[in-house]
Amino acid sequence: MLHYTPPLRDLRFVLHEVLGAAQRLQALPGHAEMDAATLDTLAEEAGRFAADRILPVNAAADAVGCRWADGEVTMPPGFAAAYQAYRELGWPAICADTGVGGQALPTVVFSTVNELVASASHAFVMIAAINHCAAACLRHSASAALQAQWLPGLASGRVLSSMCMTEPQAGSDIGLLSTRAVPDDQGSYRLSGSKIFASGAEHDLSDNIVHLVLARVPGAPAGSRGISLFLVPKRLPDGRRNGVHCDGIEHKMGLHGSPTCALRFDDARGWLIGEVNAGLPAMFPMMNEARLLSGLQAVGLSELALQNALAYAKERRQGRSPAGRQPCTLVEHPDVQRMLLTQKAWTEGGRALVHWAALLIDDAARHPEADQARAAGELLGLLTPIIKGFLSENAQQSISLALQTFGGHGYVRETGIEQLARDARVITLYEGTTGIQGQDLLLRKVLGDGGSRLQRLLTLVRDWLAGPGQGAAMAEFAAPLARLLDELQSLTQTLGARERAAPGAALGAGTVYLRIAGHLVLAWLWARMAQASHAGAAQGDAWYALKLETARFYFTQMLPETQALRAAALAPASDTAALLAASH
Amino acid sequence: MLHYTPPLRDLRFVLHEVLGAAQRLQALPGHAEMDAATLDTLAEEAGRFAADRILPVNAAADAVGCRWADGEVTMPPGFAAAYQAYRELGWPAICADTGVGGQALPTVVFSTVNELVASASHAFVMIAAINHCAAACLRHSASAALQAQWLPGLASGRVLSSMCMTEPQAGSDIGLLSTRAVPDDQGSYRLSGSKIFASGAEHDLSDNIVHLVLARVPGAPAGSRGISLFLVPKRLPDGRRNGVHCDGIEHKMGLHGSPTCALRFDDARGWLIGEVNAGLPAMFPMMNEARLLSGLQAVGLSELALQNALAYAKERRQGRSPAGRQPCTLVEHPDVQRMLLTQKAWTEGGRALVHWAALLIDDAARHPEADQARAAGELLGLLTPIIKGFLSENAQQSISLALQTFGGHGYVRETGIEQLARDARVITLYEGTTGIQGQDLLLRKVLGDGGSRLQRLLTLVRDWLAGPGQGAAMAEFAAPLARLLDELQSLTQTLGARERAAPGAALGAGTVYLRIAGHLVLAWLWARMAQASHAGAAQGDAWYALKLETARFYFTQMLPETQALRAAALAPASDTAALLAASH
Repeated sequence: MLHYTPPLRDLRFVLHEVLGAAQRLQALPGHAEMDAATLDTLAEEAGRFAADRILPVNAAADAVGCRWADGEVTMPPGFAAAYQAYRELGWPAICADTGVGGQALPTVVFSTVNELVASASHAFVMIAAINHCAAACLRHSASAALQAQWLPGLASGRVLSSMCMTEPQAGSDIGLLSTRAVPDDQGSYRLSGSKIFASGAEHDLSDNIVHLVLARVPGAPAGSRGISLFLVPKRLPDGRRNGVHCDGIEHKMGLHGSPTCALRFDDARGWLIGEVNAGLPAMFPMMNEARLLSGLQAVGLSELALQNALAYAKERRQGRSPAGRQPCTLVEHPDVQRMLLTQKAWTEGGRALVHWAALLIDDAARHPEADQARAAGELLGLLTPIIKGFLSENAQQSISLALQTFGGHGYVRETGIEQLARDARVITLYEGTTGIQGQDLLLRKVLGDGGSRLQRLLTLVRDWLAGPGQGAAMAEFAAPLARLLDELQSLTQTLGARERAAPGAALGAGTVYLRIAGHLVLAWLWARMAQASHAGAAQGDAWYALKLETARFYFTQMLPETQALRAAALAPASDTAALLAASH
Repeated sequence: MLHYTPPLRDLRFVLHEVLGAAQRLQALPGHAEMDAATLDTLAEEAGRFAADRILPVNAAADAVGCRWADGEVTMPPGFAAAYQAYRELGWPAICADTGVGGQALPTVVFSTVNELVASASHAFVMIAAINHCAAACLRHSASAALQAQWLPGLASGRVLSSMCMTEPQAGSDIGLLSTRAVPDDQGSYRLSGSKIFASGAEHDLSDNIVHLVLARVPGAPAGSRGISLFLVPKRLPDGRRNGVHCDGIEHKMGLHGSPTCALRFDDARGWLIGEVNAGLPAMFPMMNEARLLSGLQAVGLSELALQNALAYAKERRQGRSPAGRQPCTLVEHPDVQRMLLTQKAWTEGGRALVHWAALLIDDAARHPEADQARAAGELLGLLTPIIKGFLSENAQQSISLALQTFGGHGYVRETGIEQLARDARVITLYEGTTGIQGQDLLLRKVLGDGGSRLQRLLTLVRDWLAGPGQGAAMAEFAAPLARLLDELQSLTQTLGARERAAPGAALGAGTVYLRIAGHLVLAWLWARMAQASHAGAAQGDAWYALKLETARFYFTQMLPETQALRAAALAPASDTAALLAASH
């Protein structure tokens, strides 16, 4: 059984000592009261709720799982009570507008709360946090009437929601979808078709579920330009059941507490969100929030794995210490330290990244200076595939190392760590695979706008190098960071030239490029964390000393991965499609 | 459901075109008749049996698993019949001596057959191949009487076997074990104590099971020098049950078809193998064979994953081709090619390594020139931790990429690939974790004998560089191989100096060193495979062309990992034990 202590100290460090969150928020209209103490209190309360009420239901979520019978899904034992408590405490409403019953707190509160909830239960956060994403979509594109009708229920958590995109023949290639939406004579549409992989699309936690469904209207162009977005409730406003049927749930490797539904729309009534044939752009705000949420899951799951691996390494006696040859605990073995520090570097670096991104969402939404708001939005566009693609891969590495730290005991269900590994395996698959994120980053976000978004990121790094990075104590971080900055810039030019010479030619480097860019962001954040720890470490404070050592470990042991990645990205790539297709 | 086609073409390539197996074997006394056709026929028969009889039971091995009740274990449906057929066809006896009913075939036949069986079922190969390892132990250390008593049953498969080493407090640190063995007045011993993680220690496949048990005699020194090895049968020679009780089986992440037993010895009668207090050296031959077997599992499981990922990528239509922007199959996407070629490079490179190692076992056992036999044995000692540690990690990466190729469908049980990922997760844990292998390689096998074993490996690489590597067509492989050779040599010197200056100081680099050494071996093998493919590729043969492209991919995209590893190994390592121990 896994234990969990909310990482409040590290959250305070990231939010206040590194990101200056309260100060940034107070500059935004509507968040003037967001001081550090308020942020800390919210994190404490969410952490207590996560550890006391959610973590205890997570083992049964795996062992019992969701059960489907006759179109209905029963959630695992304890889920309904935990969700009820979550609602009663008002957690669904924290970031909703006050006009719909929300508290209108900044996104960084959402990210803090949901990192903690994700640690306690991946399945729970999936179902509980999706309303935040759905509401973002409605606010962005739905008519005022639809918003007034549904946002209050989403804010109170009385209504839950799901994203219905994938069809058997249309996964990453959403343009292949075939669900039909035909206008009726009541200003709404009738939807027919089947969706798969719809998380939380049927369950017994709420009376109603709002499905956000991609479909085609008659005469729509082929491909992704002919897709429209619809709101299709499980129950119609008059309380009757709509023509939405859950034909089954997937049996998965893990995440058994999250119902992954096959949904059939049988002349189901739906309402258009946004414009006809503009369904994908209308869904982007939801997908972007969902990708940030994947990053929060990556950090939360890694944190849980790290805490349990560290506790085991401190307690388990095995082998002899390298120098003294005395019987010792695992943590005294250098190779175990290597595994733990790798986990810390990914987890704590990821934490800084996701909460910084949340602050950027707040800036983009509210910054009084339009330039700053736009800059934040552009940075966010660049960071989204990095958060999704880089952090989810790192989390799997991190959790696998935690399992490895347990040795053979890690493979046994009893210790609980293997559940984490199975649950987390999905995060590089859903909301766009890592390959899709790499393609989005390199082709769309970097080369697609001539590198202007990338320059915004590089400017931040350069500013640090020209400022705090000049100090002698920071040289060990500044030098490799500056080198990586140059390398990324030159690699970007090389790949840009390659793509201009033959469109599609840079595509093979997308995933590799994503990792290099991810490292640049993480190295910059770790340098800033080293800077924020330096004085404390010098004064002998063990907490800061370990933070500083983790930064050093990241720079000396993990950042060199970029050398291998760069060599791979620069090497000429052959097209082996025909050879592979002919082989067997 | 996974499909499987035995990779007979690639086995022929590795055995004949790269390793010259038949020629090498024919130089050994007793193997004069081992021509290529015989080796191929054995592989064909084993492959047919694996695909037709074993693969079909592997899904139920996972879904139903082993069941324990009242001390008895029932194997999954179909296992008993498959094992019966395996016995009747004589597979357990292939490498046993003729004197005990075996066919005395070379170890490379064992490795070929068991790579194929491992592809079909990880659980099946675990239980079926362990007799080969147990027999190696008995032949090496047991009395003639014990050998005569038990080897025929092991050869016919009438008796199965298990290794009983781990206890709850004694995992990697075997010296902590506390099972007691007290001499009785019949020339045997009485054993009392508990073991865990004993694979195949109870089941319904055979009437009797021979347990090889590590225990302490009264007055034995503490630690690993006070451990003796005993043969403890489930049934005594007179047919009565011995005092061996299975108290339960582990519930694991995967490998549900392999019963991982908690075994209690309650005044159980056992017979000493080898000398008192020399149990660990007596068990080494078994552990070494088991570590080679882990390598065969790594290759076999990766092959199954690769075949299924490739078939899916060839069939699944999703997205548009990079250049033509036409609807296309997955295999046309450069990022999917990257994933498939990575899998091919690990799998096919690993195949060359494990079967070469099997040939070295044959050389060590039978080579008429004592020098050559000793050289083979020493090389094998060096390669064993590499085969276990490097190939098992690569297999997990490879299988994870196969799952990733399936996208969200890979996460669903139905496709079968997620079972592979769960099953294979254990191979970096059992038979010594990767960290233990790294420590064994660097401290014992390399620095421990002043590098003389390493020099044997480097000489082989240098010989290739000075011979076939001189050709112009091989320059793209020879240059990076030569560079890596120099780098490994200089790194070894640096780490040796570090260890001499402060014993234990090099320990933290063990795992990283293992990967670099693994890459050197694999790069040498891939260079030889490129050499063996070159003429065929030049003549337009697609099979050889893909092999050559895979070699290029390995050298340009994967080998650069060594740059990152070298930087990590050379960086000064801090001892963070105290800081980690104080943190929470």
